[in-house]
Amino acid sequence: MNPTTPSSGKSLDPERHASVIQAMHAHNLDLLLCATPASVRLVSGYWPVMGNSVAAVSREGAVYAIVPEDERELAQATTAAECIDYQPHTLERLTTAPEALLEPLQTLAKRLGSRPRNIGISVSDAVEPGSYVAHNRMQNFLQPLVEQAFPNAAFHATKEMLTGLEAVKTPREIAVIRRACERAAAGFAAAPAAIAAGRREDEVAADVQAAYERTANQGFERGFGKFFCMSGPNSVKAAGAYARTRSRVLEQGDLVMIHANTTGDGLWTDLTRTYTVGTPSAEHTRMRTAIDEARSAALEAIAGDVLASRVDQAARDILSNRGFGPAFKHAVGHGVGFAAADANALPRLHPKSSDILAVGMTFNIEPAIYLEGIGGMRNCDVIACGSNGAHILSCF
Amino acid sequence: MNPTTPSSGKSLDPERHASVIQAMHAHNLDLLLCATPASVRLVSGYWPVMGNSVAAVSREGAVYAIVPEDERELAQATTAAECIDYQPHTLERLTTAPEALLEPLQTLAKRLGSRPRNIGISVSDAVEPGSYVAHNRMQNFLQPLVEQAFPNAAFHATKEMLTGLEAVKTPREIAVIRRACERAAAGFAAAPAAIAAGRREDEVAADVQAAYERTANQGFERGFGKFFCMSGPNSVKAAGAYARTRSRVLEQGDLVMIHANTTGDGLWTDLTRTYTVGTPSAEHTRMRTAIDEARSAALEAIAGDVLASRVDQAARDILSNRGFGPAFKHAVGHGVGFAAADANALPRLHPKSSDILAVGMTFNIEPAIYLEGIGGMRNCDVIACGSNGAHILSCF
Repeated sequence: MNPTTPSSGKSLDPERHASVIQAMHAHNLDLLLCATPASVRLVSGYWPVMGNSVAAVSREGAVYAIVPEDERELAQATTAAECIDYQPHTLERLTTAPEALLEPLQTLAKRLGSRPRNIGISVSDAVEPGSYVAHNRMQNFLQPLVEQAFPNAAFHATKEMLTGLEAVKTPREIAVIRRACERAAAGFAAAPAAIAAGRREDEVAADVQAAYERTANQGFERGFGKFFCMSGPNSVKAAGAYARTRSRVLEQGDLVMIHANTTGDGLWTDLTRTYTVGTPSAEHTRMRTAIDEARSAALEAIAGDVLASRVDQAARDILSNRGFGPAFKHAVGHGVGFAAADANALPRLHPKSSDILAVGMTFNIEPAIYLEGIGGMRNCDVIACGSNGAHILSCF
Repeated sequence: MNPTTPSSGKSLDPERHASVIQAMHAHNLDLLLCATPASVRLVSGYWPVMGNSVAAVSREGAVYAIVPEDERELAQATTAAECIDYQPHTLERLTTAPEALLEPLQTLAKRLGSRPRNIGISVSDAVEPGSYVAHNRMQNFLQPLVEQAFPNAAFHATKEMLTGLEAVKTPREIAVIRRACERAAAGFAAAPAAIAAGRREDEVAADVQAAYERTANQGFERGFGKFFCMSGPNSVKAAGAYARTRSRVLEQGDLVMIHANTTGDGLWTDLTRTYTVGTPSAEHTRMRTAIDEARSAALEAIAGDVLASRVDQAARDILSNRGFGPAFKHAVGHGVGFAAADANALPRLHPKSSDILAVGMTFNIEPAIYLEGIGGMRNCDVIACGSNGAHILSCF
């Protein structure tokens, strides 16, 4: 193990660093240990690939990252944290990543001059974003290891603290989300040419995915995203919690929904556009008008200190007045950024939500109409709550 | 909540069902509760999308699946389990998926005539495969809910039991992995045309990904996969635990590695092929010959009751004798199937492994040479251990 590697000097996001330290003081933590990829990204700027990294922040503001050797290059390009390398897998020993993590945690403990007494640990989230085919769930194994490395410390859950920190983005983070939306736009730009009667959903999805992937990395260390195509009756099923591309053949007059979740360096987008194969019917046009007006009403309602449920209500009122109330089957939005697709990420723009909007929060606005026999239509944008109202981050 | 939905009558895999029941008897379990997508797939045949499903098997052989309403169609198409629907998210209440899970667990408890005393619960794995942009980690929240739904029962960890069950596939499961490899072949077939000097890695990866995605669903309810391109010096970095496509421009004479992990209905592949831009150099040819011979030696060594480390040794001896010993930086293979890319999935074909091969085990064989200044070359196939030796599941 290479004990420590000086960072590239890439600066930490000063506003994020200040907000983390402030929260640690408010919760009387001497040390914060993060193991979920989202929380490592939050406190260090480095977005782990495999999930076997740990970030640490001391009350005094020092930031460390325990990093598998094969992610060191990525870590150094994206964080000013002092990196402690380790090897989860070697030819010389057969260990699991959690077993191999004890040694670098002990190195970290030595590195921290004073003995931290109160340590906050990031626990597993109910919903976690995925950007690789395999994920180490180090967060599930962290606590007993930390107890060994930091004997006599007291351990505290940090879920509420981290959820709150994740909800409000810094200007730098918002700029990353905006750029991720710009990259995703390349996929959507290919959709009109890809959508045609006689083509299958998986053929359409492959085309828009490829258009996205050709430039997904531009401006990022790592871009990743997944595009979906749902047509005709399958677009009605898109009211569910997940998107699914099937092999259905598109027909003239179908509604065709293209949905994407993409990320640039660990900050996510949630985007949907709906197209018609051929000329929109009169009913499609009525649906489109209702969704456009619902979107406008939601955007109009967005401001700091506003109850999140009122944004949902603004959109829902429009859709109800136009006869589409029961066809709008989900909330108008939820937090997006450190989460990809999590209905419970803050703020929840849901009829029963007691969340209150704050400047810097990012979320989606996704008015939709799902009608059996006709089709599903949804428009989903990513929005930031600014001091002067809604900022649309997905302008395409 | 729709209390129960009759299944489509799709039959359970009889050999898998027998192996699960046998293991439950051996561990004296009255009930087995599975929440990781891999373990739900294992015991029921249904592969959850979002991760908020639970499968239950009684000692008497009854199989149940607690399924979010929007995955019912998928569950019914893939399992004979009796489905219990629930709604993780509604407009009427704002709950997390774990909170919403208590009610269907209580329904399950009522449905089971006798009171199970000994309940096995699948806990979180260190490494979990990912096939969607968001994952519910229900397994992290299951135990307290189960304790409420089944008061007075005793709870038992099942990690070792499930790991053993996952390692040995049934003929039906092996057929699914073979078909998944056949689908992945469509991506690799597009690689020679996509690879050319002047093109970027992300352009090449987008092309092979699209070629795969056009037919990824054929023969499956759900196909998913991710292709990567790593060229020149980046192919040397492919010795690490993960693949990464960058924006490097390919040059004449580069080695270009195409790597993929794909799945059909929850059973995974792990595949790599290496190409040269233009004519292979003499060194490339020496590398190719060494890898081909190492692969043959590994395949030759595969048989039931053989020590897994001997398969690694067989490949390593060839590469060492040809001067490439230190350049072969990882083990020759690991379990593949319910895991996508997990160096600790059984069997571990690693120098220090004490695992013993058994008929029905599936794993990759990935002899490789990573040389600074020259490039990385790897060939990765998926293999089943048959009664008469190795069966190559990735024949393309």
